[in-house]
Amino acid sequence: MEDHFLIREHLAGPDQAAVSETLFTIGNGYVGVRGLLEEDDAHPTLDSTRVHGLFNFIEGGVSPDLAPAPHWLGLTIEFDGYRFGADTSQGRVLGAERILNVRDATLTRRVLWQTAGGSVIRLTFERFASAVDQHVLVLRLSVMALHGEPQMHISGGIDTRVSLASGFQHWEPWETGSPAPDAVWVRSRTLQSGYELAMAAALVTDLDAAPALLADGAHPQVAYSAQLAQGQTITITKLVGLSTSREGGNPLADALAALERARQAGYDALYYAHRAHWERVWEDSDVVLEGDPFLQRALRFCLYHILIAAPPHDNQVSIGAKTLSGAGYRAHVFWDTELFMVQPLTLTQPHLARNLLMYRYHRLPGARAKAKANGFEGAMFPWESADTGEEVTPQWTPPDPVTGKRIRIWTGELEQHLTSDIAYAIMQYWHWTGDDAFMRDYGAEIVLDGARFWASRVEWNAAENRYEINHVIGPDEYHEDVNNNVFTNTMARWHLDTARQVWDWLSDRHPEQAAALGRTLSIDTAALDRWQTIIDRIYIPFDDERQIHIQFDGFFDLEPVDVLEYQPRIVSLPGILGHEESAHLRVIKQADVVMLMALLGEQVADQSVQRNNWETYYPLADHGSSLSPAMHAWVAARLGRLDLAGELFEHAAEIDLRDNKGNSRDGIHGASCGGLWQALVFGFAGLHLTPDGPMLDPHLPPGWERVQFAVYYQGERHTFKIEGGDVSIERG
Amino acid sequence: MEDHFLIREHLAGPDQAAVSETLFTIGNGYVGVRGLLEEDDAHPTLDSTRVHGLFNFIEGGVSPDLAPAPHWLGLTIEFDGYRFGADTSQGRVLGAERILNVRDATLTRRVLWQTAGGSVIRLTFERFASAVDQHVLVLRLSVMALHGEPQMHISGGIDTRVSLASGFQHWEPWETGSPAPDAVWVRSRTLQSGYELAMAAALVTDLDAAPALLADGAHPQVAYSAQLAQGQTITITKLVGLSTSREGGNPLADALAALERARQAGYDALYYAHRAHWERVWEDSDVVLEGDPFLQRALRFCLYHILIAAPPHDNQVSIGAKTLSGAGYRAHVFWDTELFMVQPLTLTQPHLARNLLMYRYHRLPGARAKAKANGFEGAMFPWESADTGEEVTPQWTPPDPVTGKRIRIWTGELEQHLTSDIAYAIMQYWHWTGDDAFMRDYGAEIVLDGARFWASRVEWNAAENRYEINHVIGPDEYHEDVNNNVFTNTMARWHLDTARQVWDWLSDRHPEQAAALGRTLSIDTAALDRWQTIIDRIYIPFDDERQIHIQFDGFFDLEPVDVLEYQPRIVSLPGILGHEESAHLRVIKQADVVMLMALLGEQVADQSVQRNNWETYYPLADHGSSLSPAMHAWVAARLGRLDLAGELFEHAAEIDLRDNKGNSRDGIHGASCGGLWQALVFGFAGLHLTPDGPMLDPHLPPGWERVQFAVYYQGERHTFKIEGGDVSIERG
Repeated sequence: MEDHFLIREHLAGPDQAAVSETLFTIGNGYVGVRGLLEEDDAHPTLDSTRVHGLFNFIEGGVSPDLAPAPHWLGLTIEFDGYRFGADTSQGRVLGAERILNVRDATLTRRVLWQTAGGSVIRLTFERFASAVDQHVLVLRLSVMALHGEPQMHISGGIDTRVSLASGFQHWEPWETGSPAPDAVWVRSRTLQSGYELAMAAALVTDLDAAPALLADGAHPQVAYSAQLAQGQTITITKLVGLSTSREGGNPLADALAALERARQAGYDALYYAHRAHWERVWEDSDVVLEGDPFLQRALRFCLYHILIAAPPHDNQVSIGAKTLSGAGYRAHVFWDTELFMVQPLTLTQPHLARNLLMYRYHRLPGARAKAKANGFEGAMFPWESADTGEEVTPQWTPPDPVTGKRIRIWTGELEQHLTSDIAYAIMQYWHWTGDDAFMRDYGAEIVLDGARFWASRVEWNAAENRYEINHVIGPDEYHEDVNNNVFTNTMARWHLDTARQVWDWLSDRHPEQAAALGRTLSIDTAALDRWQTIIDRIYIPFDDERQIHIQFDGFFDLEPVDVLEYQPRIVSLPGILGHEESAHLRVIKQADVVMLMALLGEQVADQSVQRNNWETYYPLADHGSSLSPAMHAWVAARLGRLDLAGELFEHAAEIDLRDNKGNSRDGIHGASCGGLWQALVFGFAGLHLTPDGPMLDPHLPPGWERVQFAVYYQGERHTFKIEGGDVSIERG
Repeated sequence: MEDHFLIREHLAGPDQAAVSETLFTIGNGYVGVRGLLEEDDAHPTLDSTRVHGLFNFIEGGVSPDLAPAPHWLGLTIEFDGYRFGADTSQGRVLGAERILNVRDATLTRRVLWQTAGGSVIRLTFERFASAVDQHVLVLRLSVMALHGEPQMHISGGIDTRVSLASGFQHWEPWETGSPAPDAVWVRSRTLQSGYELAMAAALVTDLDAAPALLADGAHPQVAYSAQLAQGQTITITKLVGLSTSREGGNPLADALAALERARQAGYDALYYAHRAHWERVWEDSDVVLEGDPFLQRALRFCLYHILIAAPPHDNQVSIGAKTLSGAGYRAHVFWDTELFMVQPLTLTQPHLARNLLMYRYHRLPGARAKAKANGFEGAMFPWESADTGEEVTPQWTPPDPVTGKRIRIWTGELEQHLTSDIAYAIMQYWHWTGDDAFMRDYGAEIVLDGARFWASRVEWNAAENRYEINHVIGPDEYHEDVNNNVFTNTMARWHLDTARQVWDWLSDRHPEQAAALGRTLSIDTAALDRWQTIIDRIYIPFDDERQIHIQFDGFFDLEPVDVLEYQPRIVSLPGILGHEESAHLRVIKQADVVMLMALLGEQVADQSVQRNNWETYYPLADHGSSLSPAMHAWVAARLGRLDLAGELFEHAAEIDLRDNKGNSRDGIHGASCGGLWQALVFGFAGLHLTPDGPMLDPHLPPGWERVQFAVYYQGERHTFKIEGGDVSIERG
């Protein structure tokens, strides 16, 4: 933990405005809205609003991207002709603050502004994406003239001039219209994928003024003018309805209907319903960590960002690596979802976890196609997944801005552990929820068809009399095309073993479903015997002398490098020494053997070997991925290395809040967020399932006064409290 | 207290580098050294190093300034000809951090840097101002080549090209020389005041390389060249001796002798002695606040900045409003010292408090001259004080950069409460320490001669049959030239009353000293009777109907303004609405009636009136001075307004650490630092003296798990612990 005698200064990325845009994202699991400033119509992209599932592939692009929705936040505000904003010739900012309240998922911005003419105005902006009516977005501006009585002119509408940083255009030319004197609408469809989106916005006010429509093709707006009286507060509310063809209806009609619902309800009713929803969410999802306000805040911040990205009413979409808060990784879905973000949802909001797992179920055809194309059987899930379920990992990085050099990306071909990771998330979901219907109808099929993939994927090494898995990438992506990655091999063995148990359960409890699946997936006694043979004879690289796992064949022949000496830094080791050069070095991108210990614990090795593994691999970790620190914290806590665990936990907590990877502008590191929760709950608190239900085995760092959280186990709520060495469980 | 569901963004000043320079100041009570970067020879002023007492007045300036000492931190470092620094054509910063460790008063900076040629080097800089040998400054650079074997060239010396931001030159042309092949020296004297300063620096290294002298008149340096081996750590240590004519010897000889002592000891011995000293300091001065790491850190940060500014061996200097950490307020001494910074020292490091009070004793002639010049008797201390004890408050502000407008400063003439404030600090010191010798020989004289000033200052209002004090400025400096400021009048009454008690004590216990003082200060029965008459009949403005104090005559005739609505902001209300305009508004710069309640508590009014005062004056406070939030927190805590008290305390804690006044670049807000400690100890913990010794009456905000601190009472250490509703006192 941080020494409270130390005052630190960290090197952060230069682009603080873009980082704040990410941190201050609001959302409701259908749409995410980055924290752009209302007046910033000179923003480079206006890429504020991202709706789940609207993937589009552009000729000349490398991979499908999430098409940005129109920018609905804009307001142009003038007082006596002075335009509110950062331009110091127009006025000066006397003070400003933004507060993201994760308790009710609202972003509030307050600015005290003085026009160049001397008037002083307080502007308060509040925004939220309704958690109750997912098609409704709300922005309210309250203006109070504290000094002077300026003439106010305000306009706002929907700006369609959005783009991604890549500059590619994703939309057909926008159609626009006006359904009412104070409202406008826009609609278009994505060029390649043909998703239609419509958005309608009304600008309503308590001003005694008539709206004027400003017909600008690309940016239709509504405007008002009025003189302010000193001390008077007026409000202008922007109500937005949006809908897409993914919901099955007529997007424009649906968007207009949503706008009409919002208008009927009004701001207050919309807000109170929204807040009541979030109160219920936090009743289940909140985690209390007393004794460290920064960590407390970071935990809630992280849970919030997962919660606003998780689709409540859609099981055809999943959460991308950067949630809906940024353009990073093109909103593609990685193992980040199943091994990092799903877990907190499984235990606290299981209906959301189920939707995310169903996304994978619906994409079994894509996974089967990938297996077939690679010469395998069963379901081989794509490393990066978008809407179709195909492999969408790009094959090359974009050219380096300085050198022009591109790097070949091999993960789409070689990083194969994802299929087991999905099975792991399913088994966790099943064990914690007891949702047998899900398992019977969907989960079993994913697990079993994944097992078929592994059974076809392993290679028999006759000389060594063992099964191997060669030519893979493990979680440590610095080393590509390695043989017998211990994470991959162990998870494959676990997967096959698990599949056998699932098969036995299904055959016993749901014989008809077992029979049907047995037919479609060709699961028979021969297949099951082969699985068992592989389980018994798959190679798990282990050094008997040193009593440690070997990350992959030849790992210890790599050139040693003293990774821990390369401090402080925000640049990865390959970023310093070169991508190819680093492949020859004994440096690990992220938790690999350590990740395996987090997931499987005693199933991997006893405590003594686990300690040896830790001492071997921890010093080699580059934390070149944001996924790494939380997993290390989890394992360090289990092994009783509490000081180090606390430090790693703080590292994970800082990733976005202090931009300590230098790339938070691209979006929230969703996996690290989910990892933080897991490190706390599974690591420090030691939550685990026993025949008597969930139990704790806590190891808290000094200074953590109280930890409290709730989880659902088979539909029953269990509230755990750790305080002063005592643990209490309250059921129900 | 901060809601842990909120993520905030604050508007901070743009100049983060200059703020960090202030925060990362090191010092030893003789010299303060701002956190300039070692390689930044393009820094606008090179104003890093400030030695107590070296005031100098420049023709064309408005007031004496502390002349900046030469810049001794500079190091020019090249690897294969690439120059270390921020220039991206030379290389790139892979990571950087600075850590100020207030436990041992060292600043450590670590940078991982890659040359444009590809070599990777870790640079670690450590610096401290020896707490054991105040004439010694130390900077050590450790260099490790992690990748590559570059040729290193390094040079460093003493840069005399320093200036203040004003651009005025304070020094005669510098003489330079070299006492050894690896060392240089410089010396000069201030142009007007004639203080001589000498500094000598040696650059020593474990490199196998010979030093070369670089004779640059203004910046004499020593240089080394050597090839680094990969993985090898080499160190270069800059040892500096400095001395001034204020210490009475030959500055150059003394600086060279200090350098020689440092050289003989070497870095390790210097550091361990320094650290041991600071361990003892913290044994007495540390405050533990468990449950809020930010506040914990802020408290230690604040104590540190007072401790490194308090002179341990010199009772002819005092601490300026910005300590030795910046050029703000020209290092002048205000009431900030006696009412804010002295208190924590009085209770934890009384020898330092005594030095600061002795500074005022030595300046009695200046105070008497000011009284005389204004037609009064006794000692009237100058509002701003430098070396001579004369009034050095400038009469005009510098011209506004935009409007060119200057504002007349009246505090030098009209803000007169300082004389009582000094008496208050003396009485606190005496009561807590029991240092009768100080009181007999020095303290009594200050208190009694101050009382003479007040007795001559008050005006008889025959119509009202009362004494008044008209034409003053109270702590609320927004209202100049007011009559009967309740703070000033009440403190004057308290001062006269206190002086009578001091006189009785002195007459009783030390009749010879009483007789001598009675003669020189003309204290006789008539004088004492007059004091009593004033005490009995001085006007204390009070509204009987509302049961509140009236800040000054006519305060409630001022135009009301809703101060609390002007949020958020970092600009003062006069900065927004104009200086003259604000004089007509009912807005208070800082705690005034509230400050009085902090100092005198029940002596001012009972709890009921105190509450009324709070409800009246708190909403009017602009906190336009950094002195305000901590005083408000103190009083709010005493009145049981714990939420507000916590908020105000956090506001005070953030002043420098989050630059929430936007001017931390000018130096640490020393008064707020001392106020923070007082708010905790006197406010939240409720420390007070009783006939049985010091006792607590704690009111802690929720979430503060434990508060612990020690104070000395009459030479005996008392350790207080507040935890879970229990209070314990340990003596000895």
